[in-house]
Amino acid sequence: MAQARLKIFGWGREGEGMTAEEEAFALDIHRRRFGVTEFPTTVMPTFDDIKLRAPRIAPPAAIAGICSTATYDRAAHAHSKGFTDAVRSMLNDFSSAPDVVAYPTNEQDIAAVMDWAGSSGAALIPFGGGSSVVGGVTPPADGRPTITLDLARLDKVLEIDHTSRAARIQAGVFGPALEDQLRPHGLTLRHFPQSFEYSTLGGWIATRSGGHFATLYTHIDDFVENLRVVTPSGTLESRRLPGSGAGPSPDRMFIGSEGILGVITEAWMRLQDRPRFRAGGAVRFKDFFTAARALRVLSQTGLYPSNCRILDAEEAFNTGAADGSVAVMMLAFESADHPVEAWMKRALECCADFGGAPETAGGADAHREGAAGQWRTAFIRMPYGREKMVPRGIISDTFETAITWERFEAFHDTVKAATERGIREATGRPGQVTCRFTHAYPDGPAPYFSFHALGRHGALLDQWLAIKTAASDAVIDGGGTITHHHAVGREHRPWYDRQRPDLFAAALTAAKRTLDPQGILNPGVLIDP
Amino acid sequence: MAQARLKIFGWGREGEGMTAEEEAFALDIHRRRFGVTEFPTTVMPTFDDIKLRAPRIAPPAAIAGICSTATYDRAAHAHSKGFTDAVRSMLNDFSSAPDVVAYPTNEQDIAAVMDWAGSSGAALIPFGGGSSVVGGVTPPADGRPTITLDLARLDKVLEIDHTSRAARIQAGVFGPALEDQLRPHGLTLRHFPQSFEYSTLGGWIATRSGGHFATLYTHIDDFVENLRVVTPSGTLESRRLPGSGAGPSPDRMFIGSEGILGVITEAWMRLQDRPRFRAGGAVRFKDFFTAARALRVLSQTGLYPSNCRILDAEEAFNTGAADGSVAVMMLAFESADHPVEAWMKRALECCADFGGAPETAGGADAHREGAAGQWRTAFIRMPYGREKMVPRGIISDTFETAITWERFEAFHDTVKAATERGIREATGRPGQVTCRFTHAYPDGPAPYFSFHALGRHGALLDQWLAIKTAASDAVIDGGGTITHHHAVGREHRPWYDRQRPDLFAAALTAAKRTLDPQGILNPGVLIDP
Repeated sequence: MAQARLKIFGWGREGEGMTAEEEAFALDIHRRRFGVTEFPTTVMPTFDDIKLRAPRIAPPAAIAGICSTATYDRAAHAHSKGFTDAVRSMLNDFSSAPDVVAYPTNEQDIAAVMDWAGSSGAALIPFGGGSSVVGGVTPPADGRPTITLDLARLDKVLEIDHTSRAARIQAGVFGPALEDQLRPHGLTLRHFPQSFEYSTLGGWIATRSGGHFATLYTHIDDFVENLRVVTPSGTLESRRLPGSGAGPSPDRMFIGSEGILGVITEAWMRLQDRPRFRAGGAVRFKDFFTAARALRVLSQTGLYPSNCRILDAEEAFNTGAADGSVAVMMLAFESADHPVEAWMKRALECCADFGGAPETAGGADAHREGAAGQWRTAFIRMPYGREKMVPRGIISDTFETAITWERFEAFHDTVKAATERGIREATGRPGQVTCRFTHAYPDGPAPYFSFHALGRHGALLDQWLAIKTAASDAVIDGGGTITHHHAVGREHRPWYDRQRPDLFAAALTAAKRTLDPQGILNPGVLIDP
Repeated sequence: MAQARLKIFGWGREGEGMTAEEEAFALDIHRRRFGVTEFPTTVMPTFDDIKLRAPRIAPPAAIAGICSTATYDRAAHAHSKGFTDAVRSMLNDFSSAPDVVAYPTNEQDIAAVMDWAGSSGAALIPFGGGSSVVGGVTPPADGRPTITLDLARLDKVLEIDHTSRAARIQAGVFGPALEDQLRPHGLTLRHFPQSFEYSTLGGWIATRSGGHFATLYTHIDDFVENLRVVTPSGTLESRRLPGSGAGPSPDRMFIGSEGILGVITEAWMRLQDRPRFRAGGAVRFKDFFTAARALRVLSQTGLYPSNCRILDAEEAFNTGAADGSVAVMMLAFESADHPVEAWMKRALECCADFGGAPETAGGADAHREGAAGQWRTAFIRMPYGREKMVPRGIISDTFETAITWERFEAFHDTVKAATERGIREATGRPGQVTCRFTHAYPDGPAPYFSFHALGRHGALLDQWLAIKTAASDAVIDGGGTITHHHAVGREHRPWYDRQRPDLFAAALTAAKRTLDPQGILNPGVLIDP
């Protein structure tokens, strides 16, 4: 069954998006939030409005068959999916469109495209599903011709090892297609980032994606058994092992390398049996910090809930999970092996110690009902909102971090206040900043902030940057990480540079020069080209 | 209370060693194993026999106070603690002794020693407890003067964060002193490698040490929150975070770097509450593979036992854990938060599905009783055996690896047969090769082999190398790792070179040249100098 193409002007595939009801619900919240009745609305360009510069390079004959210079292909690879990307699309700014998009079908194709990039002085941008919200797949505007390498044709599960519960998987496979190929075998990767439908295995690994599990196996990192990587200096494959202590992990150098060292082509991934036992539900707390304290205790019990995300009162209200008077914890355990009631019972005791009251008794499908179900739906549908809100001048965005528990409360207040101040200063009126946790560790949470501001057409990019800067400065000054699982890309570079040790950057740069001597791969991401 | 000095000719501190009973027990097994009544025994040299070359370099005045050229200091840092080291000590071969041993008290001292090493053309060997069994702290024999940097004076817990359960700890602290400093706070690192008493935090991190937990948190890697590292190019500190997705992990570049990139001086480490609830005991299986199949299922349940080590029948017999007719699993759960009977019950069901019969009902201290207790004591005392057996020409050594489950059984048979063949060819008579698992992952075990051969004085090093080569070739040819937690050092280099991707070695070499441009740090370990 042929799939619709990915959208140029928004999230997901053509024909998909918010329903009229979802749009009305979201707009209603924004109207009340900003105290306005109408939003001055810009008309979005259409496909026919897009005008691209003529390609500056043409592929050699040997790879012409896998390359496209069609307007759709170039325009659909011009932007990532962040706020600034939506604004630039709205402004019909496609100056970042690559000159050529290559769709390799194997590693030989990739090596050939790399050779061509090197010989033609072009930059090469590895592209999975394009769901980056940090400019990770946006071609650089440094005057060089650019080639985007779209891995969508590397979409197969190649081999399954039932005994060890692992599979060898091509990097370009999208989340749903991956799970479709595993399902007949009773296996699942269970890596469900918010972008699951529109992101790929290789993208998850290259950006240290955060997935389904709120504890223990938070990032994709832990599921990687080995990697194959094509670099301009050759192809390498790490050894497939359940564990090793032989030198620094080769895999860990490529996990999170965001396309600057090589192109991940396949990986053996650790899988799970499909869960058969579940317990879960929403737990209400009087406020966010009380919920956080309960979660701290829970995260240190060794119970390892698959879900234990908390929402502050405003976030719970915005997603329909509560009435705005209470904070909510989404709590769940799952297992393919054993009933999990004993685990759930002890977790609820931890919650009760902090006044946490379960919304429903923890039934098997409780995580799909009530507050949890409301929030889950809102979570998956959320990215479709941007294409509806940006034309109305609404600046809604998110940022996420991690911090140790003993610093969390002060850090939260400082970051929230700085972001609120940034909104006021940038837009001249108050906005809203809410917080939830996406993941929790024994030593600290991963707070995820959402902010909403009423911007002004013509100034949206500047206003967004001012707010983003206020928030990011506060995150870095407060000791947090500039990203827990959204990656660095182009937009987080200034703060990443303050976060990571300079000598590590120097070592990473030296490693890149060895693997990519001509500097063709994703120049400007993570380190200077 | 002043501690005794570390031994020159054996394991541990002066005055410690096997009791007469332990020695008699071990010798009795060897006599029956090899069918002999006596062992031609070499007289060990004494301290007064040691003759060292005159130091080729002398420290500058500014650091003379932290440097020693005393014979004890130089001789005690001449060797690691592997089989070849014991033989060389026995042969009074101290040609690898460093010219100078420096005992820095702070990072400034370390930087000053590095500067001196650079200006004097010396190699610098970072030294923790010196317990390496792979030549990891043996100075290289490349003609250069050598300085050993002994970190023992960096032995403090500097800061404790109860809320996040973490501590900032200096790298030179030994295991017992570390736990002593944490105990009053109710906290524990719970990292108990076999070398626990004679190894240091920095050594564990630099070598990816494997610890107490048989599942989940197998290596020290997962407990590292951040690192401080002094390199010849400067000092760096990674950000203290519970989790991050900002680029490749800086910590992971130094974890396992075995002293070639810099000297780890301190780390924030994740801690545990002291366990209050325990369940455990030994489970008997008809044979090793049946035990392994049960363990595979158990490792995939998500129960995460703290211990689930299995011993083959011969290994169980050698350590007094069983009578040689059955394989044994040491099974234990522990928690600071909740009773673990539900976990133990389900684990025993997994065992029972494969005919596994518990030796005792799982009481709170069962892991210190019966077979488990026998084995635990033998495990801790084992390293003291070498200094008693080498003078008798007995070649006893171990090697460890990891492999995915679907390859394990064939891999085990091939490696065992190759090692047995190596013993016969090297010594002219059969020896013994046994196997246990030290750690288990959902996708595979970490098998740990012990071998015993009757060698011949004058040929011990050659015989050992022939056996080691046969075993290591089989491990690498079979797809395993040359080390799961013993590290690479000097002795595993040939097989590590076959295991790790060449392009990764090139990238690591480039990183090293940036951090250590003069190549002073542990030259020859992991990569070429």
